[in-house]
Amino acid sequence: MQMTSENSIEVTAFTWPTGFYSDATHAGLKEAQDDMGWLYSQVPASAAGVYTTNQFQAAPTKLTKATINRQYQLQAVIVNSGNANSCNGSQGETDALMMQSLAANKLQIDQQLVAVASTGVIGEPLPMAKIKTGISQLALSQSVGITQAVLTTDTHSKTITVKCLIDQQLVTITGFCKGSGMIHPNMATMLGFVTTDAAIDGQHLQELLSTTVDETFNQITVDGDTSTNDMVMVMANGMAGNKPLTQNSDDYPTFVQAFKRVLTHLAQEIAGDGEGASKLVEVNVTGAFNHLEAQQVAKAIVGSNLVKAMIFGADANWGRVMQAIGQTTAHVDINGVSVSINGMQLVKNSVAAIVDDHKVSASLNNKQVSIAVDLNAGVAEGTAWGCDLTYKYVQINASYRS
Amino acid sequence: MQMTSENSIEVTAFTWPTGFYSDATHAGLKEAQDDMGWLYSQVPASAAGVYTTNQFQAAPTKLTKATINRQYQLQAVIVNSGNANSCNGSQGETDALMMQSLAANKLQIDQQLVAVASTGVIGEPLPMAKIKTGISQLALSQSVGITQAVLTTDTHSKTITVKCLIDQQLVTITGFCKGSGMIHPNMATMLGFVTTDAAIDGQHLQELLSTTVDETFNQITVDGDTSTNDMVMVMANGMAGNKPLTQNSDDYPTFVQAFKRVLTHLAQEIAGDGEGASKLVEVNVTGAFNHLEAQQVAKAIVGSNLVKAMIFGADANWGRVMQAIGQTTAHVDINGVSVSINGMQLVKNSVAAIVDDHKVSASLNNKQVSIAVDLNAGVAEGTAWGCDLTYKYVQINASYRS
Repeated sequence: MQMTSENSIEVTAFTWPTGFYSDATHAGLKEAQDDMGWLYSQVPASAAGVYTTNQFQAAPTKLTKATINRQYQLQAVIVNSGNANSCNGSQGETDALMMQSLAANKLQIDQQLVAVASTGVIGEPLPMAKIKTGISQLALSQSVGITQAVLTTDTHSKTITVKCLIDQQLVTITGFCKGSGMIHPNMATMLGFVTTDAAIDGQHLQELLSTTVDETFNQITVDGDTSTNDMVMVMANGMAGNKPLTQNSDDYPTFVQAFKRVLTHLAQEIAGDGEGASKLVEVNVTGAFNHLEAQQVAKAIVGSNLVKAMIFGADANWGRVMQAIGQTTAHVDINGVSVSINGMQLVKNSVAAIVDDHKVSASLNNKQVSIAVDLNAGVAEGTAWGCDLTYKYVQINASYRS
Repeated sequence: MQMTSENSIEVTAFTWPTGFYSDATHAGLKEAQDDMGWLYSQVPASAAGVYTTNQFQAAPTKLTKATINRQYQLQAVIVNSGNANSCNGSQGETDALMMQSLAANKLQIDQQLVAVASTGVIGEPLPMAKIKTGISQLALSQSVGITQAVLTTDTHSKTITVKCLIDQQLVTITGFCKGSGMIHPNMATMLGFVTTDAAIDGQHLQELLSTTVDETFNQITVDGDTSTNDMVMVMANGMAGNKPLTQNSDDYPTFVQAFKRVLTHLAQEIAGDGEGASKLVEVNVTGAFNHLEAQQVAKAIVGSNLVKAMIFGADANWGRVMQAIGQTTAHVDINGVSVSINGMQLVKNSVAAIVDDHKVSASLNNKQVSIAVDLNAGVAEGTAWGCDLTYKYVQINASYRS
């Protein structure tokens, strides 16, 4: 077990929390790899979700949102890749409902306890015969197959398991996700799934998820595009046996920390595996007027095509960072900004600092790049993650369907 | 002379309006090409400007804004490329003032009638000895050299001359610009200059410029980045002899049309010459709730990296257009959107329309691509221009300084 810096929170090998089962199969939506899977909890779990803000919300995304918001409860999630079931009109809504119903029947649970998530090509009808076959093939196991079956252009699966003691009970939080950023309108989508055996009611879980997503998934950017199917959901089945967590529980801060660790890891994994990305970029902003502005500036820097291309080219061209800062509406001390790249200060009081910029440029060849900015306008901080802009990004997106 | 569709507005060969003089020279800021120039009007001209919204406004941009806003009058503009005089602190401000003063002395006019524009590398002090030499070399001529001397990574100069009859006098409007979009933080900047011999007072000119820029320069995007030095300015010296134009003048609509034609042409030229661009893209949005939303949606589509990469790859992947629309906050009939590319309808009522999409993909190999979107949410319209996202864009920006 790898100990983390936070006391009593441990990152462990992948395992499902108590009472969670899973499976994956090949339903024929993709050529060879598994393309369907499900998650199942032995007992109904508290549930929460956050959903894409794109106005063309896909049918499964709308259905899942309505399902979770009914009672903040879920017992299963059925997932497919290869087809997003998006922009398919009323046929899409019928098909999403049918997928939910087929999974519920097979699991012998209430349809209202099943979430549906789809990712893949937009605007092609969901092949329901294949979906039906796929669901009939799914069983209940400890398999990790679903973490592969949800992938599209991702280069690898993205998972994490964290354990902590809550109310003297061992609590497990396991998350996985897919997406090379919110950047795939076709093999669409960023999807995140978190399971835990902690006891916590649905409303509290929803608050925690919404807050934590703002600090993690919403602070990554690959190209600024938001899919019609983006969604992060969490299920907490209470089987760890702790007293239900509230904001007043002694161990609530530990749980929050563990939960945030899971989402941070998954968000970083997505940023670092952005389409065509060769480097993970982290931007830390300090000295901001408030936290929101710190987050805004961090995301503006990490999202600038010019900054991203400069990192790809290993060129410590700090004017691009200044320009990205200046484009925001955040409070900035126009004559007091500092910028460091990989720990070396390039800008002091908004003008060039004396530094060996060849050394800084050389350090941009690292697989991980950090940019630190002090706005000198307050004491708030914020962080965002992204990746570089490469030839491969253009190639992937220029020839996606061919 | 090429007649345009609007009666009495003609696009002609390049010529300066009556009373305008210009010159260009090599001051040594760039290796071989001309890198300085000026514009001069025989008499003080009404003047107006619009300036970058980037918080780190460069010293010459700030100085020019203050100069113009004093009385909406100018008699000359001094311009250099190769150095943006941006992020240089108080030294930058001193140098911009000195550049203004040197030009005024040489021209024997009031310093307060001289605008200054710089474009080039950020964060390096302006080499004042070279600037001084450059100004000493400038003369008054009918040369078009300044339209070349302002260029940085542009592949060609961008100019237009339009003539029309105003109050029975022949009025000339001549514009030129530089910039491969608002995308160069280093060899920075989009700069636009418009000269006319029409008579119109400064306040009216400022109103006209601000309104027209919103419809033209502000509707182009190459990569969404805004330089510290962006600026469009106009000088109107009244030497055509018309009665000063106001909104009540009989021929005001003709002048507005001619003026807009100049700015539209320059904006399109910049979009089509975007860094690495191989195609000019025009997006027309109809059926919008209001004009602002139409403009917002048009710009969101033309600015989406995914749409841009799809056009580069000649892949009629309409899900990307839908996704870009859905990301905006504009009113949209979620089930009633139409999308056409190069005149062929791909989406009807927000789902796939029957079309030969290979034919549409093939049409994306044209040098000009048009996308038409009907939001079905009103009667307003809007247009934006941009370019495709290419390997060359990444290459240029990854290795800019090397």
